[in-house]
Amino acid sequence: MNLSKAAVLAAYRQPLELREYPVPGVCPGEVLVRVEMAGICGTDVHLCDGELNIPLPVILGHETVGTIQAIGGSKKDWHGTPLAPGERVTWASSIACGDCYYCRLKRQPTRCLSRKAYGISYSADEAPHLRGGYAQYILLRAETAIFRIPDAVSSESVVGAGCALTTVLHGVEHTLVELGDTVIVQGAGPVGLAAVAVAIQSGAAKVIVIGAPQRRLELAKEFGAHAVVSVEEIPDAAERKALILADTGPYGADVVLECVGRPSAVPEGWELCRDGGRCLVLGQYANSGDIAINPHSITRKQLQISGSWGFEPRHVDRAITLLQNPHWQERFCAEVTHRFPLAQADEAMQMARRQQAGKVVITP
Amino acid sequence: MNLSKAAVLAAYRQPLELREYPVPGVCPGEVLVRVEMAGICGTDVHLCDGELNIPLPVILGHETVGTIQAIGGSKKDWHGTPLAPGERVTWASSIACGDCYYCRLKRQPTRCLSRKAYGISYSADEAPHLRGGYAQYILLRAETAIFRIPDAVSSESVVGAGCALTTVLHGVEHTLVELGDTVIVQGAGPVGLAAVAVAIQSGAAKVIVIGAPQRRLELAKEFGAHAVVSVEEIPDAAERKALILADTGPYGADVVLECVGRPSAVPEGWELCRDGGRCLVLGQYANSGDIAINPHSITRKQLQISGSWGFEPRHVDRAITLLQNPHWQERFCAEVTHRFPLAQADEAMQMARRQQAGKVVITP
Amino acid sequence: MNLSKAAVLAAYRQPLELREYPVPGVCPGEVLVRVEMAGICGTDVHLCDGELNIPLPVILGHETVGTIQAIGGSKKDWHGTPLAPGERVTWASSIACGDCYYCRLKRQPTRCLSRKAYGISYSADEAPHLRGGYAQYILLRAETAIFRIPDAVSSESVVGAGCALTTVLHGVEHTLVELGDTVIVQGAGPVGLAAVAVAIQSGAAKVIVIGAPQRRLELAKEFGAHAVVSVEEIPDAAERKALILADTGPYGADVVLECVGRPSAVPEGWELCRDGGRCLVLGQYANSGDIAINPHSITRKQLQISGSWGFEPRHVDRAITLLQNPHWQERFCAEVTHRFPLAQADEAMQMARRQQAGKVVITP
Amino acid sequence: MNLSKAAVLAAYRQPLELREYPVPGVCPGEVLVRVEMAGICGTDVHLCDGELNIPLPVILGHETVGTIQAIGGSKKDWHGTPLAPGERVTWASSIACGDCYYCRLKRQPTRCLSRKAYGISYSADEAPHLRGGYAQYILLRAETAIFRIPDAVSSESVVGAGCALTTVLHGVEHTLVELGDTVIVQGAGPVGLAAVAVAIQSGAAKVIVIGAPQRRLELAKEFGAHAVVSVEEIPDAAERKALILADTGPYGADVVLECVGRPSAVPEGWELCRDGGRCLVLGQYANSGDIAINPHSITRKQLQISGSWGFEPRHVDRAITLLQNPHWQERFCAEVTHRFPLAQADEAMQMARRQQAGKVVITP
Repeated sequence: MNLSKAAVLAAYRQPLELREYPVPGVCPGEVLVRVEMAGICGTDVHLCDGELNIPLPVILGHETVGTIQAIGGSKKDWHGTPLAPGERVTWASSIACGDCYYCRLKRQPTRCLSRKAYGISYSADEAPHLRGGYAQYILLRAETAIFRIPDAVSSESVVGAGCALTTVLHGVEHTLVELGDTVIVQGAGPVGLAAVAVAIQSGAAKVIVIGAPQRRLELAKEFGAHAVVSVEEIPDAAERKALILADTGPYGADVVLECVGRPSAVPEGWELCRDGGRCLVLGQYANSGDIAINPHSITRKQLQISGSWGFEPRHVDRAITLLQNPHWQERFCAEVTHRFPLAQADEAMQMARRQQAGKVVITP
Repeated sequence: MNLSKAAVLAAYRQPLELREYPVPGVCPGEVLVRVEMAGICGTDVHLCDGELNIPLPVILGHETVGTIQAIGGSKKDWHGTPLAPGERVTWASSIACGDCYYCRLKRQPTRCLSRKAYGISYSADEAPHLRGGYAQYILLRAETAIFRIPDAVSSESVVGAGCALTTVLHGVEHTLVELGDTVIVQGAGPVGLAAVAVAIQSGAAKVIVIGAPQRRLELAKEFGAHAVVSVEEIPDAAERKALILADTGPYGADVVLECVGRPSAVPEGWELCRDGGRCLVLGQYANSGDIAINPHSITRKQLQISGSWGFEPRHVDRAITLLQNPHWQERFCAEVTHRFPLAQADEAMQMARRQQAGKVVITP
Repeated sequence: MNLSKAAVLAAYRQPLELREYPVPGVCPGEVLVRVEMAGICGTDVHLCDGELNIPLPVILGHETVGTIQAIGGSKKDWHGTPLAPGERVTWASSIACGDCYYCRLKRQPTRCLSRKAYGISYSADEAPHLRGGYAQYILLRAETAIFRIPDAVSSESVVGAGCALTTVLHGVEHTLVELGDTVIVQGAGPVGLAAVAVAIQSGAAKVIVIGAPQRRLELAKEFGAHAVVSVEEIPDAAERKALILADTGPYGADVVLECVGRPSAVPEGWELCRDGGRCLVLGQYANSGDIAINPHSITRKQLQISGSWGFEPRHVDRAITLLQNPHWQERFCAEVTHRFPLAQADEAMQMARRQQAGKVVITP
Repeated sequence: MNLSKAAVLAAYRQPLELREYPVPGVCPGEVLVRVEMAGICGTDVHLCDGELNIPLPVILGHETVGTIQAIGGSKKDWHGTPLAPGERVTWASSIACGDCYYCRLKRQPTRCLSRKAYGISYSADEAPHLRGGYAQYILLRAETAIFRIPDAVSSESVVGAGCALTTVLHGVEHTLVELGDTVIVQGAGPVGLAAVAVAIQSGAAKVIVIGAPQRRLELAKEFGAHAVVSVEEIPDAAERKALILADTGPYGADVVLECVGRPSAVPEGWELCRDGGRCLVLGQYANSGDIAINPHSITRKQLQISGSWGFEPRHVDRAITLLQNPHWQERFCAEVTHRFPLAQADEAMQMARRQQAGKVVITP
């Protein structure tokens, strides 16, 4: 029987361990994938720290590219074309049930009551074990939305864009960016940079990024940001506001995309938005507690505020479309700065945790 | 020279005083109106208490019906039909400049940089003095959007609906109510009741009102609320939530319309909304300070939150249309419970302050 | 073995024949329903005449209410509550695959590439045979969206509303009716009357119906139409236009809902719409050939024109919600004017064909 | 007294004549502009031919750039900044009244009941005569929306983009282009090329242009079209459809932007659109008569069809924003291929009529 190595999180705040699991056979519609590259997302660091409640032990890894090894009978990609062994693919990390109150009645599949995500929601103790990207093999359920990757799109760019890009593509559906808009992006992490890309691609005339460190702000400029403001150089929010309004004009930006995660960014963003403008609260994925806001601002400024959670398969499709544009292909590819073999998965995680690198990936 | 009596607020927290001003002549496009009825709005109480910064002395009154006395040359109503003396009219209380960043570039006229409202923004010391409803006469500027009142619509219903109805009609443009929606209205004051009317008229299948006192909740039922929850009987928010979710189903309402004004209502409303639902923050007209919120809720619940400020002339038009429906005509008419002559304007204000009555009006 | 009688269309333009089929057992998720009432829709008449290409022989009937007889294992209603024998239900007549270009990529499930409808798309020669409403029993596939009918909602009202109401509820999603709108409904058949109901329930201030015969126009008034125009009394379109504009004002209606089916209604409707207004082309379900239009009107009048095809399960849900309103309950109930036993299914069809009645139903 | 030369159309189908008019003084808010460059638009050719009813004699020219010569008192640009002599400006060619049924009640200012356009609606016989671009001077009314042109934006690019770009920017507000969409542009004239630019800038993933002649299709490629189809090489619509669907996929494009003007393009475009897609009917500015359509297609294909007429001042603002992007700056600049002095205005018009050139401009 073949075995697959996998990096396993067995207990919170403990190093990832290398374990072996049997490579499973494929039932009808299932797809066995040989993993080529799996990204470490900021969420993975939070998961290691026990900030979200997940089953343990777990094989992490929800941003993955690989090659089809075996298919149970036949399986189509999300566009309806039959898949074949040897093809390079990625997939939507979550599967919604399609059947619950949120999937069916309210058409909010990202809030599906029984949503499960590869690399997050499956115990490695339960067969077929291989349900995360930090492993030589991953077995995809028959319900998985699988996407062929065109030759012109590198695996690095897909993993480099990762769930940040798909999450932003979903978020911006809730917070329209119109042709000619001035857009503020809060945050220069992977989500922030993806927001710069999507804002520009949607027709923003000016994109201002607030974030840190300087190296990330340089990347934001390479992505196309017209101006950047360092929260390290200008730690005072009032001072930042003055500086930014000097650029946007005295009333603020048309759109503010929060991609930070610290609660304090949320009211700061609303203050930077013009009256009647649109604010996306995208970065508050983890529960980081309360923040004081003045709701009078929402009424008086006539704001439109949207939250957005995760993404749907069509955003993966749209991400791959966007990556076929050579400019974005190159930018997201360059996000990947460090590669580790599976045996060094824990070193990879430690590097990701230090946030000194760009994207850290594992190449099993 | 003719004189017009007027009730004047000369200093914050002082009784309204009766003064006299010359009845002005009409310049081109101006309209002199003999006031028939002027409502006391909750905002007027706040203004008397000095909670907003306005010029003093001031003739309050921004919800007014009257009869045209004189027209400077010719003036059309908002539909383009020439007005004539003797016609019964109401008007949009605010005039936007049409020319500024918000009026022109961003099409947010309620946020006009030089907006002025009758009964609020004009000093009674400056000619032509008569710019508020608590007076025998009011002189309307040529730029005013004036609306004829059809015979079938009583003055009581127009003043009873007041700026509450127009404000809600604007708000619900930002927070769509769809056919079949379950809607929670927070607040049973004039704005809350108007929200019940607009939600039902927009096709809501179920409307639940949270508020107090009991008498207002009874009114809410007469307006068509399917259920009411008393914040006096159930002061604990968690208990209220349990009760309400038993009615809406476990995930909450499709739409929550906040019409309260206390900051604490805002996060409570968001918690009562289903994921992917829509929340209007309409009641936070005055700045009542900060409240703790958890922005993680916005991201995770994928909420769409809108603020809305004031209203535009077309909402007055729409209000009059709605009042032609006999059911709403009757309901809003019944809102007016107390009438005072102009000489007792201060008694009227005291009664409005005690919030024991329905709508208090002045009939100069 | 139990047998179920069924009325079968064996050849186009031939009488319906009574045949017998074995009552099938239920596989997992399938639901066997004892039919209580099945409506004859205008489409059924077209199907009998061979105007659409369907498999023959066929058991017609796509507007059906019945009682659950047997369930294969367990099956939930569309809200997620397990169904039980003895419950009164209706269901979405079509099943979309959820998997094709239209279902998945473009989210247009009514245009599913392999959509199948009960009473239309299934050959009665193929097991399990019983796939239409004109039969004692119908076997519902496991994928069917089934809806419990509340006690307060009569079977007559559900069948009386039929697919007309659900089709309109879908159509009006494409052609927003806003609070206070003036709406013209073209057609006084079942779809036209449902359009009156949905327009009023969506907040239309004035609804004008153009149609015939007089009896249907009377019904339209009972539904709430503010004015009706008879195409029999006023056969000249220019004359009708003059009459209607006298009511709407010189520029036309905000919204025109075409529910007729004759191509000539389409350009006539566009001419009755104000510039910048919204036109729904809902009635052109069958291909009735070309009509001359002047596309300059579309550009110059700045029209928003929408087509809409069929409906989704959520529109059945919404229809049942609307029928819980006693006014609509009563109106749609009164639509059913003639009942026939299954043995007289062909007489029923002949009566429906003559369009002298309201809704004709079969009660097997 | 100073005189200004102007090229005047005195009678339809007659050569433009050079006449002289007194240069008027400036009343309050008026702006006298020394014309630098005025474009010849396809509409101007139609106007010369008498296809629209306009006052004669007329000074044509509604796409104009010039330098402020004198200001009556003070006048602000559309952003609210005071203008000064010597500044280079352009302006919205039309002025809506702001006061009529369409301007006010229905917020459709492009359908203003008393709209007037420079270069079209003013008789040159009436003072102040100079109301068109084909003249040394033009006097702008106080109500004109004037825009400063940034140094980085050449006059050629503004006139090269002309009313084509602003018209498309308005049209695409009605026919959303979403990130990743496949877009078909019908027409390779100035409007078609502008549509390519706006589609790409709005995030289209693929743009296919159908048009002629070859030279224009080459330009379309330079603008960024991914594929072009020549109506000269492939005159048969069915053959074109087969070719295009081979590129878009079998169901057609997400969006079709009609920028042709021939009625036959409209039904052809609808056939090239996928079900549930969006079609803009933008090119049917002139009344070119009827065309046969099958309205069944609109219902069955569930199309969203929009017309759009002219543009508003904010589209001029947005156009200038777009021209600050160096790629579009360069492309629209290159559209201008021929320049004529005012004395040769008629030769310029003849060249424009032959459609052999790119944009023909007059430099008075």
